[in-house]
Amino acid sequence: LFPSELFDEAIALQETYKKLYVAVAGDEEWLYATLKNIIQSDTLAEMLWNIHTEVKEEGYVQDLTLGIFRSDYMLHSPSGLFQPRQGQAVQLRQVEFNTVSCAGGVHGNRVSDMHQYLVQTGAYETQTSTDVEDTIYLASSMLPPNHTVRAVVSGLSGAHRAYGAPKSSTVTRTCVLFIVQPRNFNIADEKPIEYALWEQIPPIPTFRVIFGSDVLAHTSLGPSKELIYHPPSRPKQLSKYSLEVSVVYMRAGFEVHEYDDMGRMARLRLEKSRAIKCPSILSHFTTFKKVQQALAMPGSLERFLSEDEAVQISKTFAPIYPMDDSDAGLCARKLAMDPELAREYVLKPSLEGGGHNVYGENIPKFLAEVPAELWPSYVLMKRIQPPILYNALMSARGIQEGPVVSELGVFGICLWRRSGADKFDRKEAETCTEIARHSKASWSFKTKDASVNEMSVVKGYGCFDSPALIDLEKFSACCHQSSMENP
Amino acid sequence: LFPSELFDEAIALQETYKKLYVAVAGDEEWLYATLKNIIQSDTLAEMLWNIHTEVKEEGYVQDLTLGIFRSDYMLHSPSGLFQPRQGQAVQLRQVEFNTVSCAGGVHGNRVSDMHQYLVQTGAYETQTSTDVEDTIYLASSMLPPNHTVRAVVSGLSGAHRAYGAPKSSTVTRTCVLFIVQPRNFNIADEKPIEYALWEQIPPIPTFRVIFGSDVLAHTSLGPSKELIYHPPSRPKQLSKYSLEVSVVYMRAGFEVHEYDDMGRMARLRLEKSRAIKCPSILSHFTTFKKVQQALAMPGSLERFLSEDEAVQISKTFAPIYPMDDSDAGLCARKLAMDPELAREYVLKPSLEGGGHNVYGENIPKFLAEVPAELWPSYVLMKRIQPPILYNALMSARGIQEGPVVSELGVFGICLWRRSGADKFDRKEAETCTEIARHSKASWSFKTKDASVNEMSVVKGYGCFDSPALIDLEKFSACCHQSSMENP
Repeated sequence: LFPSELFDEAIALQETYKKLYVAVAGDEEWLYATLKNIIQSDTLAEMLWNIHTEVKEEGYVQDLTLGIFRSDYMLHSPSGLFQPRQGQAVQLRQVEFNTVSCAGGVHGNRVSDMHQYLVQTGAYETQTSTDVEDTIYLASSMLPPNHTVRAVVSGLSGAHRAYGAPKSSTVTRTCVLFIVQPRNFNIADEKPIEYALWEQIPPIPTFRVIFGSDVLAHTSLGPSKELIYHPPSRPKQLSKYSLEVSVVYMRAGFEVHEYDDMGRMARLRLEKSRAIKCPSILSHFTTFKKVQQALAMPGSLERFLSEDEAVQISKTFAPIYPMDDSDAGLCARKLAMDPELAREYVLKPSLEGGGHNVYGENIPKFLAEVPAELWPSYVLMKRIQPPILYNALMSARGIQEGPVVSELGVFGICLWRRSGADKFDRKEAETCTEIARHSKASWSFKTKDASVNEMSVVKGYGCFDSPALIDLEKFSACCHQSSMENP
Repeated sequence: LFPSELFDEAIALQETYKKLYVAVAGDEEWLYATLKNIIQSDTLAEMLWNIHTEVKEEGYVQDLTLGIFRSDYMLHSPSGLFQPRQGQAVQLRQVEFNTVSCAGGVHGNRVSDMHQYLVQTGAYETQTSTDVEDTIYLASSMLPPNHTVRAVVSGLSGAHRAYGAPKSSTVTRTCVLFIVQPRNFNIADEKPIEYALWEQIPPIPTFRVIFGSDVLAHTSLGPSKELIYHPPSRPKQLSKYSLEVSVVYMRAGFEVHEYDDMGRMARLRLEKSRAIKCPSILSHFTTFKKVQQALAMPGSLERFLSEDEAVQISKTFAPIYPMDDSDAGLCARKLAMDPELAREYVLKPSLEGGGHNVYGENIPKFLAEVPAELWPSYVLMKRIQPPILYNALMSARGIQEGPVVSELGVFGICLWRRSGADKFDRKEAETCTEIARHSKASWSFKTKDASVNEMSVVKGYGCFDSPALIDLEKFSACCHQSSMENP
């Protein structure tokens, strides 16, 4: 169960979130000031910034950027385990905002379809001999539609069309490149997008290329920095088999271990090229937790958004602090080192998207072993207190029944034109256009055992799921009942 | 490789084949005369005929019938292993015509999509360092489109709409019932059709019910013989959860072992009902091999078709004889009992759809153990001599390379209105309307090791495949080359 008002709020907010992150990606000055410490201490951040600087010196040749974002939320009930209380209603809290290689869209879509089907066929119903008239059946109308695959595909195909005809005189066709990780067991979250691009009319040729050496082996830059793809099955010397890349869709290149020499050279070639990047390297930087923390500082949002918009967005922020030597940072360090106070917090490395967080009472012990000069690359976030529901999870481990919590990820897809100025230019954010059909139905929903800290489906801690929307009041009553009946 | 002229011919012929089989199903007199011997000797035929008689006495209440047919062909080269020779060009030969539970449509569609994708991505190409300009690449345009799932779904949804509003005053919704076999491992060929019906706008409720006891437990007949479905998850006594069945889609009930008492009573209830049957019991009878054999007798086709149509159809017939005591039958018995002559023939039981055939030199030995009074339930068909090509098959057994032969199944979907006359009425066949979109792209294609007699994918003898269309002349040259290079 999920409150319909808050689901609608999360979907509606995505318009503003897209505008915000397009604006941040366009504000190189603010980004550098925010990330300076990290660029100086973190290998990946430093290398990405160097790639940006090198490309910038040569000159960026593509103004368009495609964003496929995902903003993750949990429900937060200020009084801890949900106890309905005046003025303390359950609310949306942002966990993080992702701008690179946002996964789970295909899985989320499929699992949502599955629940829709199962509800319609009556699979969740049980025959009860008494009170049958009173039983509340889960109705198919309670499950919001999910068309994330179509939305992502229309985003990629829209960018492909925006690229236009090949610029190279020697090739006749354009194509989309998926830059992927080797031996990615999560490939089922990528392939259906590729299939759907081939099924467009006319088909959009789409190829998977492994980040690093395969990018170097099978692509080249043309005289006007066209990115040319040479299918490995065809003789490279014959340009008639080559295609010009319209869109580079990154499903790799976001982890430090991917950046050996080959990885660095591959990313540099992609960035230099005329292809539309999803995302560009500056947009990649906005995914750092440090950016999320900086945006949560008083006054930050107003640099990029109107006052009304800033209020809407900031309502979803959990308290989040730097760990540097600013006043706020010194205050956060005290919280983090106090075993009692730290219990309400989570320590997040700025860079990685989940899986490297340190929770509650483990923080002081952990920080004691981190050299003080690396502390600024962490942020300290107040833990979200989600209301607990009771449900059953099905995974390879079997069926688990018990208290669960959920996370809603809202996808946002847009294409925008960079103004070229180093400083934020409101006009740039205004070029951010909605190109994806079905963008209002693009989300994923994950549910996990309430006792597990991490929400990671790939590690087996969570399951893809669908919310069943009910109004906030009924939701509160159900949570209350759950916490009473199942201590 | 498959000759494009013959592929097109098979697709075009399906219009006439549909007309023919609708006409035959409407000609009770001819059907009974043709099947009389079998009805007297075969348990299943007798029982089906008794059900028909019983329903007819009460009066059929539904004039509409849905046909989802599949006509199977192989290529035939009169000179045996293909040797191009003047006036002996390769031609289409019908293997059989199926009117009940035609399977393989979903698998065929999926595998065709897969080959289309693989060709487009270049997966079948190899980089050759010499003669690259001369290499003939398999082009995606050579693979005919396959939309069998959509065609079957539009047939079922068209019949569902034709049924109209519920006739029962106590239910508000109509639904499609799939009548299925228990523990059917081929379920993947059925479920996507069901999913697609639920995904129609508005959704068409579709449920699977196991033939026999589940049909009896979860359906009932209303006062006007409406077939009412009671979802097992809902209290049966509450009619608000019940649905009226618009279409009964039989994916079961075609094998004798399914007809215990429960099976017989289930089929009787379905036939008595107002639901549109796919197929009706008279249409079910037309799938008997005996019908195929009778239609191949000189002059038979002209009863149902114009002269031109009869010529077109009969061109696809292999010589096929009765095994009864007619003149043709006595002649066939001689062929069948002669170990030398029998080598060119296959003995088929009239009823079952494949898997019970006896081939060539095994026929005399087999017949020696069959009581003479059962001989009339068999037909003797001259073996088709397909041209041999060389290819690779991939299955659970691994990759097998070698000589292969293929079978093309063409789906035909139509809805028709029964005139009610016992005798054939040409007007009835004329009501046969094309209701399926994409019917020109509804086919399956199977390929097997040339040394195996049976084409059974479910038994592991064959693989779903896609034809690659080339013109007849090039095809002949390729076959010739194959037979030279690979003796």
